[in-house]
Amino acid sequence: MALVISYLTPDGPRYGLVDEGIVFEWEGDLLVDRQYNPGHAVGTPESVTLLPPVRPSKIVCIGRNYAAHAAEHNAAVPDEPIIFLKPPSALIGPQVAIEFAHSVGRVDHEAELAVIIGKQAHKVSRESALDYVIGYTCANDVSARDLQKKDGQWARAKGFDTFCPLGPYVNTDLNPADLGIRCTVNGQLRQDSRTSMLVFDVPALIAFISQVMTLLPGDLILTGTPEGVSQLFDGDVVRVEIEGIGTLENPVKVVS
Amino acid sequence: MALVISYLTPDGPRYGLVDEGIVFEWEGDLLVDRQYNPGHAVGTPESVTLLPPVRPSKIVCIGRNYAAHAAEHNAAVPDEPIIFLKPPSALIGPQVAIEFAHSVGRVDHEAELAVIIGKQAHKVSRESALDYVIGYTCANDVSARDLQKKDGQWARAKGFDTFCPLGPYVNTDLNPADLGIRCTVNGQLRQDSRTSMLVFDVPALIAFISQVMTLLPGDLILTGTPEGVSQLFDGDVVRVEIEGIGTLENPVKVVS
Repeated sequence: MALVISYLTPDGPRYGLVDEGIVFEWEGDLLVDRQYNPGHAVGTPESVTLLPPVRPSKIVCIGRNYAAHAAEHNAAVPDEPIIFLKPPSALIGPQVAIEFAHSVGRVDHEAELAVIIGKQAHKVSRESALDYVIGYTCANDVSARDLQKKDGQWARAKGFDTFCPLGPYVNTDLNPADLGIRCTVNGQLRQDSRTSMLVFDVPALIAFISQVMTLLPGDLILTGTPEGVSQLFDGDVVRVEIEGIGTLENPVKVVS
Repeated sequence: MALVISYLTPDGPRYGLVDEGIVFEWEGDLLVDRQYNPGHAVGTPESVTLLPPVRPSKIVCIGRNYAAHAAEHNAAVPDEPIIFLKPPSALIGPQVAIEFAHSVGRVDHEAELAVIIGKQAHKVSRESALDYVIGYTCANDVSARDLQKKDGQWARAKGFDTFCPLGPYVNTDLNPADLGIRCTVNGQLRQDSRTSMLVFDVPALIAFISQVMTLLPGDLILTGTPEGVSQLFDGDVVRVEIEGIGTLENPVKVVS
């Protein structure tokens, strides 16, 4: 298993390998080099400034992909995946504040497994789909619920700057079929499910999306959120935890 | 007035200046350099392979922004702009085929004025909004109408590869307030309006969108389509013509 992070250096973003709680320098690029040749130790993951692990050309998200979450919004499970997009400008790394104005109304967390595409995928089959994945990380599909209802289209409600926390670790050797996924707010459990409950699983999503739009290295698929979404308030600390990956933690800041 | 194109060279994409029907080499980058120092003549625009003039980090589109188009879909004019996103993978240049499978169902043209952002815009005012624009070009927001209705979300229906023709010219010195915009299919007039009919004008759109998401150099705003959208068929040739910019022409290819 390889856990990869992106962190800030005086020379810009750099990838690092995490082994037994220590970050090792890595000359390579996650999306180019499959060879891991760790350099010298940098410190603990807590001692570096973590960045979103990729800079995608697009973030493809899936709506209503856990039946129990669809039910809590009184919505039916669709017969095909519902695709929407978040703008890359919404990405933030761990520990950066999810920030929004009070006037935006209700804003919810949505814990999601994020798939990172490793090579160009155009009309790939379900059977070969996982060959196009470089790894998995945690995402929070932060959603302004009132605006989502008002607009009908979800791009504004889910597209604010800071509304896509991502990271910290990319696990490059993980089976996505049955991972525990949880969300806590201020230590209190809000979402608790498993990726085995996905209506459309990871290979099905890659096959479906790649029939429509070519997926490029670094592109993200956010696979949908389980039941238990709840409102975020100023000063909250929200954590997305996925088995085999780790914990993505962000504070919440509401401005007037 | 400066008309800028992007065209293919053996060394990759390059910007060129068009003056009296001749393309001149340009060492600069549209998004970096405001100084135009034309080099030697390359030929006519028809003699080069034209590319989409920018590679945006996001394509922000506006729904129902001409009242007469909202009416032809029996939809109300919204009280705020409706935002949706197209993926950058949908971009094609002039003369490249808009391609889709017969099974996708009805696919329509949507002629639109595209705004190209020239510098980072975060919560800018309506008054200063045009300072953040580097130029304007033609776009076609190609839309799979049956899928658009089925999904509710528009990202799939409007996100297929080839569903965002863009170009050919960027006019860097244009007032967007009242430009003629037309669409023809096989020479037959289908859409014919003016940007003065926009419900939310260009400054209002930039101000509104930049409150939500930071706009980056090269980002596109597709400002919405006027009435007269109609279905595209295999072998059609669709042209988007905007006053002061020029004509974006693409053939249509339906595959089984």
